[in-house]
Amino acid sequence: MFVAPWRSLIARALHRNRSQPYSRYFQLATVQADGRPANRTVVFRGFLGDTNLLKIITDTRSQKIDQILDQPWAEVCWYFTVTREQFRISGELALIDASHSNPELQKARRSTWQDLSDNARSQFAWPPPGKTRGQQEAFSPPPPDPANPLPNFCLLLLDPIEVDHLELRGDPQNRWCYLRDQFNTWSTTEINP
Amino acid sequence: MFVAPWRSLIARALHRNRSQPYSRYFQLATVQADGRPANRTVVFRGFLGDTNLLKIITDTRSQKIDQILDQPWAEVCWYFTVTREQFRISGELALIDASHSNPELQKARRSTWQDLSDNARSQFAWPPPGKTRGQQEAFSPPPPDPANPLPNFCLLLLDPIEVDHLELRGDPQNRWCYLRDQFNTWSTTEINP
Repeated sequence: MFVAPWRSLIARALHRNRSQPYSRYFQLATVQADGRPANRTVVFRGFLGDTNLLKIITDTRSQKIDQILDQPWAEVCWYFTVTREQFRISGELALIDASHSNPELQKARRSTWQDLSDNARSQFAWPPPGKTRGQQEAFSPPPPDPANPLPNFCLLLLDPIEVDHLELRGDPQNRWCYLRDQFNTWSTTEINP
Repeated sequence: MFVAPWRSLIARALHRNRSQPYSRYFQLATVQADGRPANRTVVFRGFLGDTNLLKIITDTRSQKIDQILDQPWAEVCWYFTVTREQFRISGELALIDASHSNPELQKARRSTWQDLSDNARSQFAWPPPGKTRGQQEAFSPPPPDPANPLPNFCLLLLDPIEVDHLELRGDPQNRWCYLRDQFNTWSTTEINP
């Protein structure tokens, strides 16, 4: 897969905003079964190898799993506070859970788990997210095996087909639209902010 | 309307994060006609008087207008970087455009316009957002009348029915769900992060 033209822009933004750890957070919008949107902050876990796929992690017990199974389409909104620029990235999500049949993707799921902090791994052993608050003890589980993901650990891959890049700096602001066609070729159009 | 219990939490977050101007930005997710989500950064313009309605502004030429007419449901994701807390606010959006019949809401639309900076007002006289980039001169329109909104200026009001508040600080993290029932009464439940 060719590296998309917006990849270097994301790399540049991550570099220029690296003083702020939350520059790796973005907002992921999905659609619920009732047709209403859902929106939450997630952590960018890098690209999958040399592909254009964005890595995110989630818990199979979270509400977004059913949403994604029903409607895999998602839009990421990623605002960088230092450089004052926004990327809107839309595409389809793929769920790589413990039962996924592709060995390469299982390998990616495992290495993503291994790259997590102990603290981040522990959260997958916490009581089910979104349910009535459990006892304090339940939040101090034995540390999970750092080598092998817990069964509820899920890798999410976003495969972008459109990226809208807005720079608030500039007079007027600058905005471009990157669009992928059926031949996996990316076009670039400068648009009005 | 009674002030919702999460209002003071938002006020506190805005106060504690006031050193960062982008603390007034949040991500607004809506759903497109094809059932896919859309997600973009918008600016919080305060609450409407003493109600629980969040004010946002938009341009009637922007894509979100058709989305909202088709599916008024939205979810805001608001992450505060200093205090490391997130509010997810879901509810229905109402569009208050130039033709809206309610005089009180027209008054609110007008005063929101008056509160904008000259620069923010000028953007409503720019070429249509999202279209192929216009000439540079088109971005230097005569300054619009500060007293009376341009016809394409639209006030958006979000009427929350659910608020999910997550504090990343805390061991474990703290999370609460605020839910409005049919009698406009808010319930609070502490839930697992």
